[in-house]
Amino acid sequence: MAQLQNGHSKKQLDIAIVGGGLVGSLEALYMAKRGHRVHIFEYREDIRKTPLARGRSINLALSVRGRTALRDVGLEEQMIQNHGIPMRARMIHRLDGSTYAIPYDARTNQCIYSVGRNYLNGLLLQESEKYENVERHFNHKLVDANLRKGSMKFETPGKENIDVTADLIIGADGAFSAVRKCMMKQPLFDYSQKYIEHGYLELCIPADESGGFQMPPNYLHIWPRGNFMMIALPNQDCSWTVTLFMPFTNFKTIDSEEKLLGFFEKYFPDSIPLIGKEKLIEDFFGGSPSPLVAVKCRPYHVEDRALIIGDAAHAVVPFYGQGMNAGFEDCTLLDKLFQKHHDSLAEILEEFSLTRWEDTHAISDLAMYNYVEMRDLVTRPSYRLRKAMDDFLFWLAPNFWVPLYNSVTFSTMPYSQCVKNREWQDKMLTYFIISAMSSALLGYFVMSR
Amino acid sequence: MAQLQNGHSKKQLDIAIVGGGLVGSLEALYMAKRGHRVHIFEYREDIRKTPLARGRSINLALSVRGRTALRDVGLEEQMIQNHGIPMRARMIHRLDGSTYAIPYDARTNQCIYSVGRNYLNGLLLQESEKYENVERHFNHKLVDANLRKGSMKFETPGKENIDVTADLIIGADGAFSAVRKCMMKQPLFDYSQKYIEHGYLELCIPADESGGFQMPPNYLHIWPRGNFMMIALPNQDCSWTVTLFMPFTNFKTIDSEEKLLGFFEKYFPDSIPLIGKEKLIEDFFGGSPSPLVAVKCRPYHVEDRALIIGDAAHAVVPFYGQGMNAGFEDCTLLDKLFQKHHDSLAEILEEFSLTRWEDTHAISDLAMYNYVEMRDLVTRPSYRLRKAMDDFLFWLAPNFWVPLYNSVTFSTMPYSQCVKNREWQDKMLTYFIISAMSSALLGYFVMSR
Repeated sequence: MAQLQNGHSKKQLDIAIVGGGLVGSLEALYMAKRGHRVHIFEYREDIRKTPLARGRSINLALSVRGRTALRDVGLEEQMIQNHGIPMRARMIHRLDGSTYAIPYDARTNQCIYSVGRNYLNGLLLQESEKYENVERHFNHKLVDANLRKGSMKFETPGKENIDVTADLIIGADGAFSAVRKCMMKQPLFDYSQKYIEHGYLELCIPADESGGFQMPPNYLHIWPRGNFMMIALPNQDCSWTVTLFMPFTNFKTIDSEEKLLGFFEKYFPDSIPLIGKEKLIEDFFGGSPSPLVAVKCRPYHVEDRALIIGDAAHAVVPFYGQGMNAGFEDCTLLDKLFQKHHDSLAEILEEFSLTRWEDTHAISDLAMYNYVEMRDLVTRPSYRLRKAMDDFLFWLAPNFWVPLYNSVTFSTMPYSQCVKNREWQDKMLTYFIISAMSSALLGYFVMSR
Repeated sequence: MAQLQNGHSKKQLDIAIVGGGLVGSLEALYMAKRGHRVHIFEYREDIRKTPLARGRSINLALSVRGRTALRDVGLEEQMIQNHGIPMRARMIHRLDGSTYAIPYDARTNQCIYSVGRNYLNGLLLQESEKYENVERHFNHKLVDANLRKGSMKFETPGKENIDVTADLIIGADGAFSAVRKCMMKQPLFDYSQKYIEHGYLELCIPADESGGFQMPPNYLHIWPRGNFMMIALPNQDCSWTVTLFMPFTNFKTIDSEEKLLGFFEKYFPDSIPLIGKEKLIEDFFGGSPSPLVAVKCRPYHVEDRALIIGDAAHAVVPFYGQGMNAGFEDCTLLDKLFQKHHDSLAEILEEFSLTRWEDTHAISDLAMYNYVEMRDLVTRPSYRLRKAMDDFLFWLAPNFWVPLYNSVTFSTMPYSQCVKNREWQDKMLTYFIISAMSSALLGYFVMSR
């Protein structure tokens, strides 16, 4: 029996975390800090020992929700100071190669950070080595589980299966979660997976000859082209990870080097010298576009024995930069529930399921919508006018009028509340505009008499 | 090589139908008529040899889409004449036990038919015995399949697994389809399953002492009670299958015989003497409420090798009485595509996927909405006024104004078109009403001068 600081005498729980990615390894730290025995089971090799896996986004945008979680486990400073590259604005690339910036937070100059997935994952795993009550098991693939009983079967490198039981199974095993697949056998489990008709393909802008950045680094660069777009996030080594998002049908039409170069000359001419023609051809035809899926489900738990978090519970499309942040926030909220319910699993898991889904559904819908904003709306005068009005009102009354993007990215307001706020703001603006026009008209009639 | 009547020389295909229920056995007849070799694999015993499975709805509403399919395979007459019980109206039971009827089709007196699931399933299987090119394999459970290769593994009664390959696998294995589970491993497969918060429980009103009906038989009886309802459909033996639909949370609160009788005395007093107190208690506590799920997915096929139809592709909640009818319509449409594309599977399956999902999504949404109509709206004056207006306009201009229920139930208009029609009718009615009120107001002002 472990005696924790709040004075409650509690059982030390055996917690099995399936998935040693970003969310799983963060959750391990939270649980280790609470004094529980934690086992991480990861089906891949130890990421600290392996080169980059191709086809996975190698950098990510860290914002306030993610930072809050890292602060809780004592890693925020290290992450931000030593590694994160601040991005203060979107840098829009026009067809002619000219650019302009749209700040994320014109008022207080807050920023998001481009961080390396592997670096952050390694850092979290490394931190877990400091806890005696955490064990890591790599190359362990979940092949079956009885979630009600807390029992699992893993395939190990020697191909021998091992059986494990735990007081709590936490599935943090990503968008194609094996734990969730077991959960789907439960009655009354709502589930949806939706693929968008667009795929993505990663390219690279290398560092320049002197090892510096080829583009201004403190921006998220965007080439919005209506039905498709390209973006670039900076890396520590002064390279850029460039991602092309486009309908699969468009990818298919680009089936020769000539067509590829023609396409880039037409739509992304300024990027060709940065990427390099040869490298562009090599990377484009060396990979194939990956699909993007949004997963929604509920409930997230099975009785007092199993829970899914992160992408396993709510994979979102990447266009709000909130996938990792939402997963990290799961861990933060879960920790608060452990505190509130004194580690009583039945209550913790039920409250998490009941209270979290509305927010994750909200960010999923926002992310879906933001793709349209990023690739198309961002270039329109109506968008820029609205953004200017939002920024002005935010400057005028920062506690009263927080624009949607800012509440999602730079606050920990529940996502569903961010959406409700925006709906209210839309109504207010419509009302303002109608009032202003009515007053103007009235004034005109009065003055013209 | 089989020489079919249209003169095209074609390969006789090996078709494996997984599921020998209503849709699977109907599809077998369609395919047998086209000259293909058909194997039905059903995981249950032969339904013709087994007593009723508890917990499955034992009667169903057959309407025009289902009848059209039965006509195609030569079974409509037999089904309607010898077995179906016509239901010409909804019979609404008020709290005080008084009733009133709402005809389904006041204009031409069309009706829906209450048919026994087992009888119809047995009839379809029996008919398949007439074809030498159909084989039935009962107690065969699909455990795995490679849909791209057309290979399947079945568990048989002796627990030995057998391997089967086919040119085409048709999954007609219901809402929890094993074929669909294999399909989910395909990339870009959209899928959703949604459970409603209501469950259902089946009760029974037996025949009276002289073997006759205890209620007027040519009606679908409804006890609408706002958030829940009870319905009854007539059976051949003059009994009624009674189904109580109610939130699971309400079911839970009825945990004693006193509470059950109190509940029925309050909400369904006229049904107690019909069901019988003892039988009510026995059936209510003998079963547990079953869940209701709606499944949507797309695409329905894998290359030129596999397809899902019926509930496997689009399980709907039962409130429009269209589940079986929509599944039968799948078979009819599929047969037309076989004709159109001369049995060329790649084209048939792709067109089915591309064209069918919009209609199945439409009927799924309609069925979800109809639950609210049946248990609540049907009792409101606004509903009865709209119904009267619809009926009048339908009588006045039967080709121009077909009410929603009639187009869904008594026509083969695509479901999505039925919905679009209704939206157009809503707009027209709003326009009529505003015009009429404006004219009346104008008239009043002119006359009062």
